[in-house]
Order: sequence, then structure tokens, then C-alpha cells
Amino acid sequence: MQFQYENSFDIKKKIDNSKIAILPVGAVEAHGPHLPLGTDNLLAERLAEKLAKRVNGLVLPTLPYGQVWSLRNFPGSINITNDSIISFLVDIGESLYHQGFTTFAMVNGHLGNGTALKEAARVLYETCPDMRVFYFFYPGMNKAASEVRETKTAHNTYFHACEIETSYMLYLVPEYTDMEKAITDIPDIPAHADVTPTSWEEFTDSAVLGDAKLATEEKGKYIVDIALDNMVKLINDSLGRV
Amino acid sequence: MQFQYENSFDIKKKIDNSKIAILPVGAVEAHGPHLPLGTDNLLAERLAEKLAKRVNGLVLPTLPYGQVWSLRNFPGSINITNDSIISFLVDIGESLYHQGFTTFAMVNGHLGNGTALKEAARVLYETCPDMRVFYFFYPGMNKAASEVRETKTAHNTYFHACEIETSYMLYLVPEYTDMEKAITDIPDIPAHADVTPTSWEEFTDSAVLGDAKLATEEKGKYIVDIALDNMVKLINDSLGRV
Amino acid sequence: MQFQYENSFDIKKKIDNSKIAILPVGAVEAHGPHLPLGTDNLLAERLAEKLAKRVNGLVLPTLPYGQVWSLRNFPGSINITNDSIISFLVDIGESLYHQGFTTFAMVNGHLGNGTALKEAARVLYETCPDMRVFYFFYPGMNKAASEVRETKTAHNTYFHACEIETSYMLYLVPEYTDMEKAITDIPDIPAHADVTPTSWEEFTDSAVLGDAKLATEEKGKYIVDIALDNMVKLINDSLGRV
Amino acid sequence: MQFQYENSFDIKKKIDNSKIAILPVGAVEAHGPHLPLGTDNLLAERLAEKLAKRVNGLVLPTLPYGQVWSLRNFPGSINITNDSIISFLVDIGESLYHQGFTTFAMVNGHLGNGTALKEAARVLYETCPDMRVFYFFYPGMNKAASEVRETKTAHNTYFHACEIETSYMLYLVPEYTDMEKAITDIPDIPAHADVTPTSWEEFTDSAVLGDAKLATEEKGKYIVDIALDNMVKLINDSLGRV
Amino acid sequence: MQFQYENSFDIKKKIDNSKIAILPVGAVEAHGPHLPLGTDNLLAERLAEKLAKRVNGLVLPTLPYGQVWSLRNFPGSINITNDSIISFLVDIGESLYHQGFTTFAMVNGHLGNGTALKEAARVLYETCPDMRVFYFFYPGMNKAASEVRETKTAHNTYFHACEIETSYMLYLVPEYTDMEKAITDIPDIPAHADVTPTSWEEFTDSAVLGDAKLATEEKGKYIVDIALDNMVKLINDSLGRV
Amino acid sequence: MQFQYENSFDIKKKIDNSKIAILPVGAVEAHGPHLPLGTDNLLAERLAEKLAKRVNGLVLPTLPYGQVWSLRNFPGSINITNDSIISFLVDIGESLYHQGFTTFAMVNGHLGNGTALKEAARVLYETCPDMRVFYFFYPGMNKAASEVRETKTAHNTYFHACEIETSYMLYLVPEYTDMEKAITDIPDIPAHADVTPTSWEEFTDSAVLGDAKLATEEKGKYIVDIALDNMVKLINDSLGRV
Repeated sequence: MQFQYENSFDIKKKIDNSKIAILPVGAVEAHGPHLPLGTDNLLAERLAEKLAKRVNGLVLPTLPYGQVWSLRNFPGSINITNDSIISFLVDIGESLYHQGFTTFAMVNGHLGNGTALKEAARVLYETCPDMRVFYFFYPGMNKAASEVRETKTAHNTYFHACEIETSYMLYLVPEYTDMEKAITDIPDIPAHADVTPTSWEEFTDSAVLGDAKLATEEKGKYIVDIALDNMVKLINDSLGRV
Repeated sequence: MQFQYENSFDIKKKIDNSKIAILPVGAVEAHGPHLPLGTDNLLAERLAEKLAKRVNGLVLPTLPYGQVWSLRNFPGSINITNDSIISFLVDIGESLYHQGFTTFAMVNGHLGNGTALKEAARVLYETCPDMRVFYFFYPGMNKAASEVRETKTAHNTYFHACEIETSYMLYLVPEYTDMEKAITDIPDIPAHADVTPTSWEEFTDSAVLGDAKLATEEKGKYIVDIALDNMVKLINDSLGRV
Repeated sequence: MQFQYENSFDIKKKIDNSKIAILPVGAVEAHGPHLPLGTDNLLAERLAEKLAKRVNGLVLPTLPYGQVWSLRNFPGSINITNDSIISFLVDIGESLYHQGFTTFAMVNGHLGNGTALKEAARVLYETCPDMRVFYFFYPGMNKAASEVRETKTAHNTYFHACEIETSYMLYLVPEYTDMEKAITDIPDIPAHADVTPTSWEEFTDSAVLGDAKLATEEKGKYIVDIALDNMVKLINDSLGRV
Repeated sequence: MQFQYENSFDIKKKIDNSKIAILPVGAVEAHGPHLPLGTDNLLAERLAEKLAKRVNGLVLPTLPYGQVWSLRNFPGSINITNDSIISFLVDIGESLYHQGFTTFAMVNGHLGNGTALKEAARVLYETCPDMRVFYFFYPGMNKAASEVRETKTAHNTYFHACEIETSYMLYLVPEYTDMEKAITDIPDIPAHADVTPTSWEEFTDSAVLGDAKLATEEKGKYIVDIALDNMVKLINDSLGRV
Repeated sequence: MQFQYENSFDIKKKIDNSKIAILPVGAVEAHGPHLPLGTDNLLAERLAEKLAKRVNGLVLPTLPYGQVWSLRNFPGSINITNDSIISFLVDIGESLYHQGFTTFAMVNGHLGNGTALKEAARVLYETCPDMRVFYFFYPGMNKAASEVRETKTAHNTYFHACEIETSYMLYLVPEYTDMEKAITDIPDIPAHADVTPTSWEEFTDSAVLGDAKLATEEKGKYIVDIALDNMVKLINDSLGRV
Repeated sequence: MQFQYENSFDIKKKIDNSKIAILPVGAVEAHGPHLPLGTDNLLAERLAEKLAKRVNGLVLPTLPYGQVWSLRNFPGSINITNDSIISFLVDIGESLYHQGFTTFAMVNGHLGNGTALKEAARVLYETCPDMRVFYFFYPGMNKAASEVRETKTAHNTYFHACEIETSYMLYLVPEYTDMEKAITDIPDIPAHADVTPTSWEEFTDSAVLGDAKLATEEKGKYIVDIALDNMVKLINDSLGRV
């Protein structure tokens, strides 16, 4: 259920029945020629909807901007600082707590937001002691992706606009995925990218980190459904639901 | 054109052709029984689309949370502090400037955001000297509204979920406007509400400030089209367009 | 009574008898050739004194600097950021609360301070729950001014060094008002001044927005006394005084 | 010359002729039974006026609140945090620089403001490279005071409402000095007051640190005139004036 | 070479000859019964010394406190917020840049500092454009550790006071490693530890994550020397050294 | 006892037995040709150890960077802002309080840290009400130094790398004191150094403020032991120990 389409007279009861707020968090960022700038927003939204159905949650409007420092110089990227994201999320979380929610699940579609979401969750841990805050980024996807991928990963933590993320799009947002434009562009990510600030234009022109042509809906479904199951289980476990 | 559905390869040229970024800014806030919590988001989005067509602008994803201090205790309201909004908007604006935009027009659907938008614009005035920043809130609406309204306004600056705002919804977002639930609830706003912090639950249970039953699509169209014309003219004038 | 001329041994009892602190807040800002840079300070001080007599309040030393962004480039203007003003006022308010005051009335002589005073009041609303905080800027003056003014207003919210403000000075601070230097300078304020950051040098050389020559003590007295009555009533009402 | 009584049309030329801005900075703080809460404001103002005459400076409106942490619990004290004072002073300084001043002399009447003034001056040292910023607190007074005092000082750096400060008042602000109420109250300041946060109510009920009865106008004049001479010399030296 | 033991007269030439500053960053944190609270400080120091010899760097005094949120409730842990660490490191970095260094290598001994170090490096990337900033945490250790470990890792990113870290200590700081107290304590880290704030006392009493008894100097040497080689190579590559 | 060499299993009991945490705070700063950059760190450490023995305290790892604004342009100086130091110290203090300490004694080896330490102590005074926080800088040294010094002091509050500080080093850290390089360099500190931001390169090339050649271990021991006795007494008095 989309929170913002409800009215104020009915929402109190619905909050009481659910108590679970789900916030998609994404980004506006270059994703190659075949995926839109809003890829991470769209993925987060669709995934949040699936999660909401499974756990009886309410889906909040998407926070559609994120921290894209590494790709900030690519056409179309809009970069938000961690501090701004943290403050904004803390405000949202504290309002949700005030409104009676006991679970606040952030469904993150963009790896670069990870730091901000974790920090915000720790702040809320202190200020909203009775609310559980989750920061989900496809939990369990690493193992699942390793099972289906045909090419090896370009980096041990990053993945971007590649076989994997494009597969997510084919499964969740096919209408904005243009496989005819998909490319293969396997960069040679320098070792220093992990230990010193490194803008991605240093090693890629396309922002694609791999072989997007190998993406399939099936791969996407396989990984995303595992991540979804994991999110469902994590929420249910935290609530003592069987 | 929706910015986030474009891809990074094509967007550079489109930015160069337009140079006008349009950001809808709204809120999640109680709007009575007949309008959704996301009313201000929906209005800002629809209005931004109309504006984009008229001035060849690119519509950014909506910033869907705002400062709703006065209604923060009503069911469903999510309140963001001015500081958080300002920081977030400044980050967006600086990225747009870096991307080559020369006009950044914020289309605001929520009066309470006014302070934050103006402050953000002043910061950007210093840091992005060649970019014009607008904070639009239905420019010219006061005069236009006075011409069509059948009831007098409950307050000289506020209007909320009333004859006027409901008319906007009937024109711009009829599918989320439920006139069967519309009510008449004319509050007696105390004089101190203008001079001391005053939560609205002090004078209204519904968050409706007037007679929503009198709303019509025509009234909405009349006012909104004037506001739209004004925005178009303000942007064109700033660009020296005839 | 001027707070700062009292001594520490006597003040405790006087605070207990009054419990109302009145803070004049002004600015140092260009006010044309006939009014001094400290116009807003002087007006706030004199008005605060009148208010104190009526409600048995204690007048604090004037905070004599304000946010004058729009006129910051005019000779003599000193501009303080909103953030600095807010922090300073919050500190004052919290000390007053600690000292036993239950009413903190800011008498503001400068429209541009409005944002900062309102924000400070909202912070104090949370931190000083039993203290009422007012931010007064000539409450009720719009209607009163419309009754006596001979020229129409240059702008629907601004007024500056014009028929109206000069009249206030003739009533409250005649010794610093030089009518021989008063001028008529009706600017054409561009429409964009309401929707994008606009320095006033863009549309006025004098900083006078109207016909200062038409100012009279009578007009000033008429409006100011209404504003004063309103302030008295607002304070008395909040205290349950008849 | 009092800056705020000048008008905007004349001030440009006067700034050009002087280029020296003098800001009195004081406090609202308990000063025993015989001196007013605003003692430090009044002293700073009178001293600033004398300094202005000697160096052809312009006197700004007094910043009448300061950091009075140690005495914050005494009746009538109003405490501002260092951070708030620093921000406020930096804003003033940057405006003065923008207005064409090349010397910004803060005449401080309250020892507790020392930290904030020094910090503000260091910030301005970076942002206003061509402006000299002074933070004066009776320069040279220690030696001069030791020559005239009849009682030994209660503390090696503090002095408060005592023989010395009361003498300043008798010289500079006699109309607000009530020697009939002057008392002798020599506290035993514990050694830990220099090495751990110590509220003064721990060792004094009166806030008087010494024998105020021994104050005389002559002592005040002797010390203050030396401090004044020193300030004049420091400013003149910095300007290369003989 | 230890920077702080040099004197100011000689250091200028030595900085010119080296231009590489190496900062050990550690933490004070519970590390089980067999390792000291300062384990991460000691490891970072010893490793920094080895690195300095290899690249001709100057070793700065250790920053001996870090972000230990997860273990903050264990006896002896001292937790610093990310914001405090970032500010402190940025100040250090800017001073080093001012002193003429062109490489600033942070040798981090505590995983939890990773976020702060990366953020600080990004700030310095903007403010010190000609200085390369590294944040090293045993680069390449994951692969190397997988080759020598006898037990599987308790978590895919954490390791703590276990077979691996104890081996580091046996190699680098044997004098503070007490293998007689080493324990085996393999916790069952709950899945939610990766997606919601989780204090470690929830799943371990000892803070040991594995079998410390299996630690050997050889294992430590094998991994640490690989990490050291990687750091040397990363620095040399950035300087264009063969 | 050095805190960081203890392990987590034993430390709880040791904290309970002591409850006194001692933090050396120093700086990296030019100290002439005969003393190392880390002079203030080394002095603080050695002094902290002596203090710990006398009062049964636990010595924390040294915070080895401080505010050295005045000497920031000398070779080897590393300058930290007051704000960064304050935040860092407050975090340490709050963790100590959480760990059960009731006394937090900062042993400061660098005068320039005084402002930051005092501010941090005041913050902790509010947040950790049952913990006593000391900021020690050789308490009582002024009198003691005046008794043994052969040359008069270059400044009434500063002393640096001179007869006095070098004597401290000869007593506490002789192994890093090179008397063969000691010089006599008595600067003429301009009067304005006390009233306007003044970098020390304006009046000294060596950073030595006096005659280091006259330093002796005996002078150092005389003053330092008095300071030590004073610290011991201040701590014992605060605990009600006889």
C-alpha cells in the first residue's frame, strides 16, 4: 500500500494494523546507455512494493536522491552528501516513530547510500528506542549472484549497470530497460580505487561495470527473490512472527 | 520530460538543449478525509510537468517530504526540519550547476516549505553564480483565488485542503480526490497563531481550513493556469526570451 | 523597566512579579536619507517600552543586528545570517526560562528577521515547554496601514523607509527623523523579486520604497497603537488575564 | 560617532574617512547589589566612545549579551554560548569588511567573552585578509590596577564587581553606580576553580569578588585611561600612524 | 622515522626528501582476554613503521581512538563518533598539505574506522588537490587470510581478536599477546547484524570472533607482509616510482 | 598503569578500583633546535604517569595533536581546530563516564589547548553530571617558575622551548633533549600579540622564547614536582580523600 495515497482520517488505523514503514531510497546516477538515470529509484520502489505485500507494510514515497560521489562527474548524476542524507533520514525516522511505527525498513537501491543509511539507523537507535530500523541492500545477493552470473564480477563489492543490475531491471522494471542498447564494458578497476578517493571516469567511460548483454529476467528474479525472502524473514524474525 | 527516465548517454545533449531543471517539492501531510497525504507532492508533480512542457524543461524526481511542523501531530504527517531540507536542496542545486543547468526551478506544492526553499536559493546564489534559482509557490494565486472563491479565506496566508486546494486537485489530480468525502470545516484560527508557535490541532480536528465541498475543477484550472502562466513568464523573462 | 539597569539583588523579586521578558530585535540597515541606519532598533526599543508598561514586562537590552540580506550591499548595512540569529535567540530564551520567566516576547522592528525569530521560537517551544514565546512584528498593521495610507503600497508584504515606516518614526523616534531629507521614490519592484534571490540595488538606489514625504506622526500613532493594543491583548490572553 | 544614528546616504563617505569600526561587547550578568546587570555593556559603551574620539572611529551598536557561564545561575544573568557569539561576531566582521572598514576593534567589557572574541578574530583573519581585528579587554590594566589597588586581588585573572570594576564604573558610568549599596565580600576562591568547571555560587553569594567600598573614580580613571591610551596606540601603530 | 622525535630545524629538509606522511589510526576496544585494549593502535604503529622504511615515509604520532560503536558497551572500550574523527583527520591532513607533504597515508588498524577515514579522504580530495590520501586497512588481506586460516571466518567482513588478528599480533606485537589466555569462542552472528544496528554483546561475551588459539606468528607474517607489499606498491605506483 | 595494555576481561575491576582516568594531551609543534616536535606529548605522558602513580589512576593513550595556530606556519607543526579537539574530547569523556569512571583528568602539555579543554569540560559538566573533569596545565607553575628562573619571562602567559620548558624536558624526558643545540633567543613580542591574531613568525625565527641554555634538570624538577603535588591534592580533595 502506498502511504501517500491514503488520507489522514484512515491512516491511523492502518498504521496500527501494520506498524511497518518501508522507505525506498535510490539515486539519480549514470547507468550506461541501456538503463535510466533513475534505475536505483525504480528498483527500490518495485522491491519495496513486493516487500510491503509480504509483511503487510506501508510504502512511503521514495527518497530519490543519493550519494553518488564516484560517478558525480558523469552526465545526469546528482550527488547528495552523506550528511544531508543522514539528517533527512533521521527526520523521517523520528516522525515515523512519533506516528506509531515500530519498524522502519529502508529498501536501498544504491550501494553508495550504505554509509548514510547505517549512520542514520544508529542515530535512530538512540532517539527511537522502541523502533527497529533496517537498512536493506539486497541481503544475501552476493551468494545468489555468484550462482547465476556468467562473467566474473569486476569488483568484489561494486556492481553497476552490469549483468547483475540489468537482470534486476529486467525482472522488476522491464519497461525502462533497453537491451538493444546494452553493452559489454569490463573495466580494469585499479587497485587504488579501494584505498584512495577515485572518480570512476578514471577507469570507465560508460559507467557499466561488466557485460550487460548477459542480463536476463531469470537471473534477476533468482537473486531478487532471495533478497526479498531474506528481507521478509529479517522483519518477521525481529517481530517474533513465525 | 522526466529526467530520471533518460539515460546517461543521451542526457548531456538534452541538458544542453534545455538547461532548465524543474524540481517538484512537496510533503507528506494530513489533508482531511478527501485528499491524500501526498496531495502536495501530486500537485507539485503535475504542475511541474505542465511547466516543463511550456519552457522546455527537464523534470527531476520529486522531493516528497517537507516541513509540516504545524500539522506534525496529525495522523500520517512526516516532518522534515528546515535545516535538513536546505542542505538537501543545496546539494541538488550544486550538482545541477555542475551538470550544466543555468535555471533551477523549484515548484513547491507546500507553503510550509517556503522558508527552506528561499534559504537554499540564497545559498546557491553565492555558490552557483551563473544559475538562476526559482522557488515557485503558485505565483499570483492570491489575486486569482480571490476572484473565484465563494467563501472567504480562513487565514490571510494559509489555505489547506479547502475550497482552493481541493480545486487544484480536481483540476490536476482528480483521480486522488474524493469529493464524496469532502467536508466543510471552517476553523476559528486564533490570532496568536501568527505570533507564537501553534500546532494546528489547537483549532482543527480535520486539517481542512474551509469548505472543500465548494471546490470545482474550473476554479482550480483558473487559478493554476494563471500561476503556470506566471511561472512561464518569469522563467522566460530571466532568459531574455520574448 | 530596563532589565539591565537593575541589580542582581533586586531582580529576582521583579522577575517573580512580572515573568514577562520583552526583547527588542532590530537591524542596522540602509533606510534612505531621512532615517538612520538603526531605525529598526529604535522603533523596536520604543515599542518595547510601551508594551512593557502595559503588561508589566521587563525590557531586555536590544539585539541590534538582524538579517538584511536584501539590502546588504547598501552603505551601512550589517548582515547577520539566520543561523547566527537563531542560535543567539535560543540561548537568550533558554536563559530567560532558567531565570523564571514564563513569557518571552520578541518585539521585532525588521521584517527580514521574521524567519529567524519564528525558527527560534519553535526551538524554544521544545526546550522550554512552560514558556510562551512571541515574535511580534506590528501585529494587525496591514489593515491599519491600509486605512491611513495615501499612496498604495509598493509591495504586498514589504514596506521600507516609506510613508508607513517614516510615520512610525515620527511617532516613536521623532528626534532621529529628518523630514527635510525625506524623498519620494516609488520603485518598480520586479515580479521575480518574490521567487528568486533579489538584491534590492536591482530596483532602488535609495532603499526607500514609497513616498516618505507623506509620513505623519498621526498615521504612525494610529497604526502603532493598534499594533500595541494587539500585542497587549495577545499577551494578556495567553496568561488568562481579563 | 554612533554608527546607527547616521543615514545610509552619508555613511559611505564617513566610512571612507574613518575605516575603523568599534564594537562594544558586554554581557547581562550579576554584579552585586551596587552595580547593574548591564555593567559590562555600559563600561564597554563608554570606553568605546572615548576610543572612537581618539582614533576617529565609528561606534557600532553594542552587542549586549555575553558568555557568563560561571555566573549563569545568579539572578538576572543571561548566558550565551561561545559558538553563538563567535558566529554572530564573524557575521558582523564580514559585513564590516564588505562595507570597506580596515580595522574592526571589539571593545570587550566582560572577561568571559575573551575566548569567543579571540576565536572570531582568528576566523576573520582568514576570511577578511585586509582587515585588522582587535579584541580589547582593558589592555595593560593588570599592571595599572596593581599600582592603585588597596586590597589584594581575589584571583590572579578574575576581577568582578570589586574595588577595580566599581572604580571603572565610578569613572565611566557613575549614574548607575550606587556606592551606598557597595559591599565588602572577599571570597575564598577554591584552587579547583582554575582546573575544573566551577559555578561561582560555590564560593560567593554576592558575585562581588573583593571590597567594592574602596572604589573611587580616581582609581578608575587611572586604570581606564592607561587602557585607553594603550588601545589608541595599538590601533595607531597598526595603521602606521605616528 | 618518527616525526615527533625530530626537531623543527631539521624537519623541513626531511619533509622535502620524503613528502610521505604515515598516520597510524587505531582504537581502544575490547579484544578478548589475550589481547590488549590498544591492539589496533599497536598493530597500526608497527605496520606504519614497516611501511615507512619501505617507502621512505615519516611516521606521525598515532591517533589512538576510533569508532567502536559495536563494542562500546564492553569493558574498556572508548567510542569516538565518525564526525569527530573526520574533523580531526581533515585538520591533520590540511596541516600536512600546508607543510609540503604530497602523500598522506592513513594506516588503519580498526575496521570500524573505515567510514570515517574514507569520508575524511574525500574532503581532503577537494581541499588539498595535490596531495594523495590513502586509507589502508590491510589491503589484500582477505585473499591472503583465506589461504592460511584453519577455521572459517565468523563473518564475511568482520574479524576480531580471532585466529587472524591474533596472528597479526604474534607477528607484530608479540610482547602484548598472551597466548595462554587465548580462547575459542565462535559466535553465531545473527543475520540481522548486517542490516540493523546491533551491539555485539547480543552475540558474544568475549568479543572474540573465532578461535584465537590457532593463531601463529607465521600466519600473521604471511598476511601482513602481503598487505605491506600492497601498500608499498600502491604508494609507489601513485608516485610513478618503478 | 597504561590503560591500553590491559585487556577487557581484567579492566572492569581495575576501573572499579581506580575510577580515575588520566589523559595526556599534547601537540606536534615546533620547539626550536634542541627539543622535538612532540615535546608537549612527551611531557604530558611522563607527567601523567607520575600522577597516575600518586592517585592510583589509569593512563589513557595520549591525544597527540593540539591547537597550534600561532606556530602553524613553522616547520613540522600540525594544527587542529578547537572545534575538532572539543568534539573528540567530549566523545572520550562520555565513553569514560559510560565505563564507570568518576574522575577524568586531562594532563595538558600545551598551553594552546587550554581553550578547547575548558570548553570540553563544560560540555561534560552537563552530560556527565557525576564525573569530575579536570584540565591541568602545570597548576601552580607560575609562582614556582618565578622562584627559579634566571631570566625574566618573555611574556606573562606564554613560555615556549625556553629556560622553563627545556628544564621540564631535562627532568622528564632527558633522552629527547639536546642541550648542545640549545640556544638563546629572546624575542621582542609586540604588544599587539595579545589583542589581535598574531602568527609567531612575526617575532621569532626559532620558536624559542628565551634562554634555553639556562635550563637544568633541577629547575624542571622543582617546578614540575610542585605542579604534580598540586594535581594530586586537587584530585584527592575532590574525592574527599585526606
